[in-house]
Amino acid sequence: MKLPDVELANRLADAAGHAIRPLFRGDWSQEKKGDMTFVTEADRAAEAAMRAIIEAERPNDGIVGEEYGTRNEGAGRQWVLDPIDGTTSFIAGRPIFGTLIALVQDGWPVLGVIDQPILKERWVGLIGEGTTFNGQPVRCAPCKDLADAVLGTTTPHQFSGDDVDAFMGVAKSVAERKIIYGGDCYNYALCASGHVDLVVEAGLKLYDYAALVPVVEGAGGIMSDWQGNPLDAGSDGRVIALGDPARLEDVLEAMSGVEHDHH
Amino acid sequence: MKLPDVELANRLADAAGHAIRPLFRGDWSQEKKGDMTFVTEADRAAEAAMRAIIEAERPNDGIVGEEYGTRNEGAGRQWVLDPIDGTTSFIAGRPIFGTLIALVQDGWPVLGVIDQPILKERWVGLIGEGTTFNGQPVRCAPCKDLADAVLGTTTPHQFSGDDVDAFMGVAKSVAERKIIYGGDCYNYALCASGHVDLVVEAGLKLYDYAALVPVVEGAGGIMSDWQGNPLDAGSDGRVIALGDPARLEDVLEAMSGVEHDHH
Repeated sequence: MKLPDVELANRLADAAGHAIRPLFRGDWSQEKKGDMTFVTEADRAAEAAMRAIIEAERPNDGIVGEEYGTRNEGAGRQWVLDPIDGTTSFIAGRPIFGTLIALVQDGWPVLGVIDQPILKERWVGLIGEGTTFNGQPVRCAPCKDLADAVLGTTTPHQFSGDDVDAFMGVAKSVAERKIIYGGDCYNYALCASGHVDLVVEAGLKLYDYAALVPVVEGAGGIMSDWQGNPLDAGSDGRVIALGDPARLEDVLEAMSGVEHDHH
Repeated sequence: MKLPDVELANRLADAAGHAIRPLFRGDWSQEKKGDMTFVTEADRAAEAAMRAIIEAERPNDGIVGEEYGTRNEGAGRQWVLDPIDGTTSFIAGRPIFGTLIALVQDGWPVLGVIDQPILKERWVGLIGEGTTFNGQPVRCAPCKDLADAVLGTTTPHQFSGDDVDAFMGVAKSVAERKIIYGGDCYNYALCASGHVDLVVEAGLKLYDYAALVPVVEGAGGIMSDWQGNPLDAGSDGRVIALGDPARLEDVLEAMSGVEHDHH
């Protein structure tokens, strides 16, 4: 009997976590020379473990992985994998990175997993069905005013050129002490759980954002590019995650430099 | 019999964690209007619990707390408390904030605790004796070249004026993908455990940095202001934490804009 997609995704996350946990805060951090190799080892071990399961259970599906590239390109169903999203946090010993697993159907992410293997926290999102955190349904939080929003973004270095102005536009519309830096995929997971209201980022690859979409949208939020369009496999890597879809126009206005009209 | 200072500090951290844990990711996050009050509740409950213990056990010692101010000002022994360092991370549901407890003797931090109550991770540092993580001794990591360093800093918004150039100087001397943002006190704790090499920040208050000094220096690292001077109660809030003291000149040169001389 064929394993349902959600159960398969959970098995993938289990396998990745099994590969990553022994390497977290490992001895490699004492040897600066070897650390990139070691991180690659964690990344590779986790992705290899996931690919082996997909190849056995879904031989006709495609795979897009950060470390081992593409398999069955052109398949309608693609498993998109980022074994460690937030490698710098992993290197630094901060347990706020994640394993990302997405099922992309005809270019659209329909199933997503954000798994934090050290804290054993797992968010699973299904478009049209909902999002769970360790098995319990979660919902994004309402946000009546952008000024009250908690805004997350991983690093200011991801923005260049006009993107800096767009980010600063939205950063200025929230309270300064409610901006959290760092976090990678973990910020999106916390958006699905109602703790973070907004994430604005640029330069993301498909394997960075595909899994986030079902998690955030399954919890009632919205993800889009910086023009407000839904994210598919061809998006430009500029993304917005927003817990309360009613604030999307406010966010887009703030990013475009248009003065927000307070009703 | 009088409780030794280290045992007292551990009791303080236990009491703060007991107050904080039930409020983490609490229902308050659903009510944006009330969230600051609720965070203040967590801060206040944790600080009040710690102050009550100090007042009972050390009636003659001073207390400097973020929430309830100063008691016995001018006492040679001062307990310096920050119940939640990293309030924004607490609000956002990220378990990388910390409770900070320092014993400052005649203006010099001699004992420090960084406690992460959700993950139950505790670093205790004693000047001249060492630093432990959950009871086990830890050491900072050697760092042969600043280019290999992991650099942590909480937010770019803490730097203004010339401080921006100083920070950018050191940021450019490390690999861009090895800069971690966010983290507050947790970055210093990870420096003591050998995972983060360098933290550079500005705008810190005594209760933000006093506890960090014994933790980092007990693990073999160094903390200083931006001129390389040791931190005492009168420092200006610009701090450097460095796991390998041999790199201090390199850091100060990078921050002053002097070209680093590669040997």
